[in-house]
Amino acid sequence: MTIETAGRLTETMIIDCHGHYTTVPAAFGEYRDALHERLAVPSGSGPVPAPPAISDDEIRETIEANQLRLMRERGVDLTIFSPRASWMDQHVTDPATARAWARASNDLVHRVTTLFPRNYAAVCQLPQTPGGSLDDSVEELERCVTELGFVGCNLNPDPSGGFWSSPPMTDEYWFPMYEKMTELDVPAMIHVSTSRNPAAHTLGAHYLNADTTVFMQLVEGDLFGWFPTLRLVIPHGGGAVPYHWGRFQGLTVRMNRPPLDGHVMQNVFFDTCVYHQPGIDLLTSVISADNILFASEMLGAVRGNNPDTGASWDDTKIYVDNVKMGEDTRSKIFELNARRIYPRLEARLAGR
Amino acid sequence: MTIETAGRLTETMIIDCHGHYTTVPAAFGEYRDALHERLAVPSGSGPVPAPPAISDDEIRETIEANQLRLMRERGVDLTIFSPRASWMDQHVTDPATARAWARASNDLVHRVTTLFPRNYAAVCQLPQTPGGSLDDSVEELERCVTELGFVGCNLNPDPSGGFWSSPPMTDEYWFPMYEKMTELDVPAMIHVSTSRNPAAHTLGAHYLNADTTVFMQLVEGDLFGWFPTLRLVIPHGGGAVPYHWGRFQGLTVRMNRPPLDGHVMQNVFFDTCVYHQPGIDLLTSVISADNILFASEMLGAVRGNNPDTGASWDDTKIYVDNVKMGEDTRSKIFELNARRIYPRLEARLAGR
Repeated sequence: MTIETAGRLTETMIIDCHGHYTTVPAAFGEYRDALHERLAVPSGSGPVPAPPAISDDEIRETIEANQLRLMRERGVDLTIFSPRASWMDQHVTDPATARAWARASNDLVHRVTTLFPRNYAAVCQLPQTPGGSLDDSVEELERCVTELGFVGCNLNPDPSGGFWSSPPMTDEYWFPMYEKMTELDVPAMIHVSTSRNPAAHTLGAHYLNADTTVFMQLVEGDLFGWFPTLRLVIPHGGGAVPYHWGRFQGLTVRMNRPPLDGHVMQNVFFDTCVYHQPGIDLLTSVISADNILFASEMLGAVRGNNPDTGASWDDTKIYVDNVKMGEDTRSKIFELNARRIYPRLEARLAGR
Repeated sequence: MTIETAGRLTETMIIDCHGHYTTVPAAFGEYRDALHERLAVPSGSGPVPAPPAISDDEIRETIEANQLRLMRERGVDLTIFSPRASWMDQHVTDPATARAWARASNDLVHRVTTLFPRNYAAVCQLPQTPGGSLDDSVEELERCVTELGFVGCNLNPDPSGGFWSSPPMTDEYWFPMYEKMTELDVPAMIHVSTSRNPAAHTLGAHYLNADTTVFMQLVEGDLFGWFPTLRLVIPHGGGAVPYHWGRFQGLTVRMNRPPLDGHVMQNVFFDTCVYHQPGIDLLTSVISADNILFASEMLGAVRGNNPDTGASWDDTKIYVDNVKMGEDTRSKIFELNARRIYPRLEARLAGR
């Protein structure tokens, strides 16, 4: 997008902060199956299998025909890219499997960013297990950031997959992750994986519920008193939160918590994965532009076109473009907030 | 509210479809404590205690000083009233306790409707238990409707209180309730009770998540193919659903389900318990007026005044009044939908 600032034309970069590698080559899905099959038989069934050989061409094809094609069509310059959320499989209790699967998934995403360095920056999956130690996750985050140039991570608040057996994210259980994130200066997107609970549909309930649940945990607790520079991105437009902003403001007063703007919203950001115009209108009218990051989660939960408009449901750039706002505000949502919240992305872009 | 219809002035009745008796006399809370204390000691600790004696004056005082005072101040004529949602205690596994507690809670609400017949109609709590038979619930619904004149019930999709151990509401497990509801021609509001899960705050997460979760269960299933006249009210503005309406429309297409308007929205209704203007603006712009019922959940989750406006957060009538809409639309939201969806209320009002 070309905008005029102080009399000169400048270019606003369009950064999508939320994309997953949902179109991996088939061999990678077979590798996942092999990991699960190993766990289905009694223990002692041999070592964790090694990841498959996947060629650069295979990766190029799956990206160019899908995510990158749509980015070009829609005018998105760069996507902050991570392994497929619904395949993070953090319900698996075996730490060796979790480590191998996260490492292979992150290595694959890293190759995407190496093949398309101008279009992708990487965010890592963590080898969390339900109730397990976070040591492996801390180690994998460090590896991805310091060795592979990742700019953040996806942190799953409910590794159980819909049973919510973990303590709230304000609990000390999570502090080792926050300490490492603070040390490395990387944010986390809060993102659950597939629901294992038949009551909660993954895409239509579990994802949105997780966003709402964690936001309320942050309202109740004082996490950012402990970690003042910690930054968390809550995806899917913040779940139910902006729609119920008055409810959360009122609860904050009733519970004698600090006002949201001076407390949680100093460290929490919502993305724009809301797939209709009225939702984006509400988000941008209720939440400060400093707390909104452009995103589409493409190719994600909702694919195909809205028959009423002919446009893709998840082409969220159209909705944001339709909102009347100043160019400074627009630049924040499309570019500047992402560069601020992901300083390792900023460092890379500044070095171009 | 006075409106002009076909040249003559008619009065639109203001019906709030969602109020709880959150201000019960202290003795009733002590009774609840006694029920819980009995369960805390080993079994064989004696019969379930009987409910306390509470005078009509005590009931009058707790209603007149609270809910009825606010109804009068805000111009609400009638509230569809039910026992306190956060005290439904359906996580308790002892059926005898569940029966006694539901019966006592419903009898108390019945007395409110007897003392204030012009201002209150009753909806019952059900003696559900986690995974337990619904026979007691069916029986209590029948008692409340046929003997006490109740007009509906609150059905808890997650008696476990935040662990979601029950099957989806489209499962045959729930059919005995739907058969009785259909026979009696009464709707249910979908309403969970207190969260027992430390991850999910009752008012700021569990309530909203339940609304979203059940809506998606209904999208996935074909409940209304089995029960074409069944009517379900999803409270708190439909949880996250209207804000993410495009997501749900897109998922419906992707999952090859019938369009929402011709399927789920023939039988599902959202209330207006959304505590700020932008939320009500979105709700009324996205959801058909035929599917919206005025409600405040007063006195409920959010009490006190918005310091920015000086008005009560939960005075939702102000927000609805501020929406530009025709008087026919307004009458649907404030009165006509409630009379249509609760035919036993309609019968009573028509008989006045």
